[in-house]
Amino acid sequence: MSAHIEIVDVAARDGLQSDPAMLSTEQKVELISRLVRAGIRRVETVSFVNPARVPQMADADAVMAALHADDATRALGASYIGLVLNRRGLGRAIAGGVDEINAVVVCTDTFAERNQGSDTAGLIAAAADVCAGAAEAGIPTTITLAATFGCPYEGEVGIDRLEWVLGELAPLGAGEIALADSIGVAVPTDVAARVALARDVLGPDVRLRCHFHNTRNMGFANATAAVQAGVTVLDASLGGIGGCPFAPNATGNIATEDLVYLLERMGHPTGVDLGRLCETVPWVEAALGHPTPGLVAKAGPFPR
Amino acid sequence: MSAHIEIVDVAARDGLQSDPAMLSTEQKVELISRLVRAGIRRVETVSFVNPARVPQMADADAVMAALHADDATRALGASYIGLVLNRRGLGRAIAGGVDEINAVVVCTDTFAERNQGSDTAGLIAAAADVCAGAAEAGIPTTITLAATFGCPYEGEVGIDRLEWVLGELAPLGAGEIALADSIGVAVPTDVAARVALARDVLGPDVRLRCHFHNTRNMGFANATAAVQAGVTVLDASLGGIGGCPFAPNATGNIATEDLVYLLERMGHPTGVDLGRLCETVPWVEAALGHPTPGLVAKAGPFPR
Repeated sequence: MSAHIEIVDVAARDGLQSDPAMLSTEQKVELISRLVRAGIRRVETVSFVNPARVPQMADADAVMAALHADDATRALGASYIGLVLNRRGLGRAIAGGVDEINAVVVCTDTFAERNQGSDTAGLIAAAADVCAGAAEAGIPTTITLAATFGCPYEGEVGIDRLEWVLGELAPLGAGEIALADSIGVAVPTDVAARVALARDVLGPDVRLRCHFHNTRNMGFANATAAVQAGVTVLDASLGGIGGCPFAPNATGNIATEDLVYLLERMGHPTGVDLGRLCETVPWVEAALGHPTPGLVAKAGPFPR
Repeated sequence: MSAHIEIVDVAARDGLQSDPAMLSTEQKVELISRLVRAGIRRVETVSFVNPARVPQMADADAVMAALHADDATRALGASYIGLVLNRRGLGRAIAGGVDEINAVVVCTDTFAERNQGSDTAGLIAAAADVCAGAAEAGIPTTITLAATFGCPYEGEVGIDRLEWVLGELAPLGAGEIALADSIGVAVPTDVAARVALARDVLGPDVRLRCHFHNTRNMGFANATAAVQAGVTVLDASLGGIGGCPFAPNATGNIATEDLVYLLERMGHPTGVDLGRLCETVPWVEAALGHPTPGLVAKAGPFPR
């Protein structure tokens, strides 16, 4: 039997954050509930960031409160993840009852400055602070490393640079590090090389996760390469919605339903019901008011 | 240095055949010329089939005549491929001056009947006839095996069935066999398994080629798997246009420009100028009157 692959659906946060549509709190909760009922067991639900900067996430506290009020969905045991950038956000996330914290570091200084107003070293310090605070609260933390495979401003990200950043992240206490191709430039050989490097630098106690965008149609080839390299946690977003609002042309996470099709056909169990996921795609398209780039919901599963 | 990968662009035939737009002969010749000037060295230019059945290919003889009149493009040394289904088509192809013949066999009886009005055994007999005639004329032949990875009517295609069909094709004298995922259902593990089987059955003297559609977003993962399995010839269509008009929901070959991005970033030379290819995408979209599904021409290459 091939390894079980855990899918973290990021539609409600990474997806919605860069979509022109503004969903209501009720629609966000419905989206998350549908994902959990389809079998997703880790959901990036909200980010606790400056609402002036990211208005799509202004109702993060209300979303978490509504999720905790939905006992039937809560009973399914999914883990709700809140993204935070600093101690202030961490306090809101803890008050909101998140099950996991996700911090973010950016691998290049230029992208870090444009995205979060600090260089990489500054973001590492902020992530250290978040990790320490989350540990005090007994909440597991992931650090997502954006621009692991390339930067929209600086271009190629050298292996030496990545090695330095990973070395700085290693002692921070995060149980999981996510290597993110924020702008969708990686190819499978990059994934194999950088996952191997990350495993070397981080050691066996830090779990590796990967986050791919399908900006240049390479997302599923890269997901395959990650699984072949032993990665067992992958991000995806229902319908393939989302991107990065600060990265030019970075449209679309890999679609969750397409990833489930890929993994299950390759013999990797995911615990996700593909049919239920696909049924939710027209719903999210209606909520957003536009089509989504995922393909399996349109073409249908195989065999039928 | 990684292996050189040869790309066969099928936009002018497989692509246009299933597109609602009807390009003029001049537009088809312009498309092919642009592909050759971008570095494509094998182009599926036309099919010599019943024009009542495939009206998009009714001007095949005129396209070939115009290509032979374009000395500047011809001097670049590209091979022009004509698809034929029988001796009658072969005669037209030889008269038209094609450099290569491409015959087609379908792996399942139901799809074969719906596509070409004969069962698989009948198509094998027709391909044998085409191979013999092409050999007499001194023209190299490829047999494309459609529905190698799955059938829109019968569902799963068993390994035993594929082994039987490949065994029938092996002695026909075709120098190349193309394994085609006509409806875009394959995943990388299927590609590894079926390429290995084909190599076993066909032996070292038959070159393997693969043809993927991106119907379920798996096309580039499958192309990667094929290259990793040692395949050195891949089909693609500029912009990702095309599909199979007889297969439900079979939209879109893998896009040539996205494939070039993938291969070159993985270190496999293709001889194709990605910038020139990308410049042709808006031209073909204008000619067709609709957008195409390829992504690299929209997102831009990396690094810029």
